[in-house]
Amino acid sequence: MADRRTALLNAAIEQIASNGTRGMRIGKVAKVAGVSPALIYHHFGNRSRLLQQALQYVGERADTYTRPVAGSARKMLLGLLASEFQDERSVRTNSAAWGELRDTAIFDAALRPTLTALTRKWVHSIAELVRRGHQDGSISPLVNPEAAGVCFSALAEGLSSRWLAGLLSTRAARAHLATGVNAMLGKSH
Amino acid sequence: MADRRTALLNAAIEQIASNGTRGMRIGKVAKVAGVSPALIYHHFGNRSRLLQQALQYVGERADTYTRPVAGSARKMLLGLLASEFQDERSVRTNSAAWGELRDTAIFDAALRPTLTALTRKWVHSIAELVRRGHQDGSISPLVNPEAAGVCFSALAEGLSSRWLAGLLSTRAARAHLATGVNAMLGKSH
Repeated sequence: MADRRTALLNAAIEQIASNGTRGMRIGKVAKVAGVSPALIYHHFGNRSRLLQQALQYVGERADTYTRPVAGSARKMLLGLLASEFQDERSVRTNSAAWGELRDTAIFDAALRPTLTALTRKWVHSIAELVRRGHQDGSISPLVNPEAAGVCFSALAEGLSSRWLAGLLSTRAARAHLATGVNAMLGKSH
Repeated sequence: MADRRTALLNAAIEQIASNGTRGMRIGKVAKVAGVSPALIYHHFGNRSRLLQQALQYVGERADTYTRPVAGSARKMLLGLLASEFQDERSVRTNSAAWGELRDTAIFDAALRPTLTALTRKWVHSIAELVRRGHQDGSISPLVNPEAAGVCFSALAEGLSSRWLAGLLSTRAARAHLATGVNAMLGKSH
């Protein structure tokens, strides 16, 4: 059961990334996952609920490939943010689906609680690393953890849109992110 | 003739902002603009060409409401960036259409030259103000103009997505932008 639900969510995310939220067809998702459309309604209730679950799942998938690297808190933070940009197809798919679902929340208020919760979680994980950086001396104590969390995640999202649209290479996206973040973090010792 | 073309582009942008690029119906655009669908093909050739012209027009519209405020180059720059976030419906519509068309470029390579040119123009206008800030002393000479252009515009885009999705108020979006930009610009005298 859990595997079938995962297969359905993966198929939904693929469809959303390739055709947009509006272009996602329940029939196509069912076909790709090898189940009947009726089963999708059985699992998710309706289309809106499927989108919410897909967004939640995009967040869970992102947790599997975004990781801080070993080192000082500043290094961990830079590594965590850089890992948003990877050449693996699954990472691009996940990022594209995130962008699509985030933009769908402009019209579909039902997506907002999940979007808000996932964005907050991201902001807090950055803020937590900034706090650790205050302790290990790798980040200036003048940097406000929550403000840094909002700014760095928003910067990553803005660069991600350009990266997905083919305006920035993976290397360039990471370089711009590091430049912006290091500038905001100030000098370390 | 020029007025009819403008009316068609305005109608297209409204449709894209409300229904997404994929949800934009040529028939609906024609109806809103009070012309026949055939006239759209006469003016724009095809759907893809209409999207490119709509993106170009979104850029032109943005020029009419994004303005630097009077003062030091730093003040002008902060004012220019803050003006991306306004409660006027036309500004939200324009930003939403920009986001939709930018994300459509993931699949539609024909949009990329226009998107690249508009993004570069934005980056350069920021870089130009950073250079002026070097001269008037309001921005640290250590700030690289082009890097700042990419970072500040990407930060504004990332915050804009959250603002449009209802995760940030206009006030909060402006405050986060100012925090990030001031941190990156360093102290002034």
